[in-house]
Amino acid sequence: MKQLNTVAIVGVGLIGGSIGMALRELELAQRVIGIGHRQESLRTARRVGAVNNTTVDLAKGVAEADLVIVCTPVGQVVDDIRRVAENCPQGTLITDAGSTKATIVEAFSCDDNIPSNASALPRGCRFLGSHPLTGGEKIGPSHASADLFEGRVTVVTPTKSTLAEDFDFLENFWTALGSMVVKMTAAEHDRAVAMTSHLPHAVAAVLACSVPEEFFRLISSGFLDTTRVASGGTEIWKQIFALNRDNILTALEHFGRNLASLETAIRNGDEAMIERILTLAKNNRDALGS
Amino acid sequence: MKQLNTVAIVGVGLIGGSIGMALRELELAQRVIGIGHRQESLRTARRVGAVNNTTVDLAKGVAEADLVIVCTPVGQVVDDIRRVAENCPQGTLITDAGSTKATIVEAFSCDDNIPSNASALPRGCRFLGSHPLTGGEKIGPSHASADLFEGRVTVVTPTKSTLAEDFDFLENFWTALGSMVVKMTAAEHDRAVAMTSHLPHAVAAVLACSVPEEFFRLISSGFLDTTRVASGGTEIWKQIFALNRDNILTALEHFGRNLASLETAIRNGDEAMIERILTLAKNNRDALGS
Repeated sequence: MKQLNTVAIVGVGLIGGSIGMALRELELAQRVIGIGHRQESLRTARRVGAVNNTTVDLAKGVAEADLVIVCTPVGQVVDDIRRVAENCPQGTLITDAGSTKATIVEAFSCDDNIPSNASALPRGCRFLGSHPLTGGEKIGPSHASADLFEGRVTVVTPTKSTLAEDFDFLENFWTALGSMVVKMTAAEHDRAVAMTSHLPHAVAAVLACSVPEEFFRLISSGFLDTTRVASGGTEIWKQIFALNRDNILTALEHFGRNLASLETAIRNGDEAMIERILTLAKNNRDALGS
Repeated sequence: MKQLNTVAIVGVGLIGGSIGMALRELELAQRVIGIGHRQESLRTARRVGAVNNTTVDLAKGVAEADLVIVCTPVGQVVDDIRRVAENCPQGTLITDAGSTKATIVEAFSCDDNIPSNASALPRGCRFLGSHPLTGGEKIGPSHASADLFEGRVTVVTPTKSTLAEDFDFLENFWTALGSMVVKMTAAEHDRAVAMTSHLPHAVAAVLACSVPEEFFRLISSGFLDTTRVASGGTEIWKQIFALNRDNILTALEHFGRNLASLETAIRNGDEAMIERILTLAKNNRDALGS
């Protein structure tokens, strides 16, 4: 990828900080500007080498950007993209790192049935959504790492109005950071991550809630693994549950039916059915690797 | 702990192999005899240094034992204890490592209301149940390790007929292997592990079953953590689901009610309730450490 002059990152948490760190280590940008609300996070981002400069003034921060990446909490991304587009250079490409895509993509795509309709953003600015599938329960720039994207999938979600050159650019960008880029529509993405990410979070959280404190001393490593993601930030997950509600409800219903099947099999001592469920589970899990 | 002459371990898988390895490394036994069905496992157990000698002949293997530990699959433990008691020296203490305790303990305790009733086993042999809460999805003696019990809880489940000296002996034994010993009745134990171990396994297995293969490429580290235990042996879990059925059904119902609460909150956009659930989950999970 050709070196960029200035990349602006709005929100320098784990993801934003790690993007900045990778861009600097790989010398993919001459300057990385971190934009945020809290001086403490911005200080940390500078200290760990995630950014060259920081500012709390979004308009100033994006004024010279060749590329803007919005990494704020997912419920805030639409508003932040609008503010970026009003202040960045004419014709700038803007992307994000939000865990849900449909509401964000829909906010900026004109009628999807009219191809080549460049953008709903002002001044020729264009939005193309990204979601790097990485991170975890640790949050904040102090956990940022340049190799956070290494070997991980990043979904890019073009619409009919997306310019081919913008998709190619983002594909190269995420690939340069070590990601494998997968192209999906925002709707497909949201259906898939409802199953692969949002459902597991819901299940882990409910499991972590369900064990009374008197049993904590008997917690095993299996319980710790199964509930690990429940340590994640509650605010971000509240937003995800709101933004991807219908897909998450569908995933929960599907999970609930399968759980009821296992429950019935256990109740009836139906060993053949229990074995079928456990074997399918083991085969799936073994196929996914460690 | 005073060094023992001969310890016999029936079943040299991950747990049995690790006990043998620890006993030998810590020089807590002059001789560790591994007893099993499959020559290959016995060979591996010898190769990794888990045992001094091995035999497929249980009667021969336990003939000179000061202590016998039955580490066979939990559904087989009761029969194996009987066979051990018929062949070991008079008055030998027998323990096990099974993941459920009530059915095993009940098989050998006389009426719990009659204290000091020494044993239902022949020839003065006594059984006292143990459950080291360790292990995981990796099985077999090739994964055995002398520090498997280090820092982990081992539950010991005395009845009214248990001799105080037997409890003290096993408490010292597991403590010498690095465990923290917790004393519970078998019934309490089974209720607790239904929540802390069996429920997470059921949930992880159902989750691993629920994701269609087309979404595998979007699997994140969170999904891998949440479903990790589903890689465990299916046979052993079939036995556990049968042996601890009622407690597991109770745990599943409790989990199901909590899941339904989260589902309703998501459906209604009830942010206060979602936040309450996620916060309780995070607080619980954070309290449990990594």
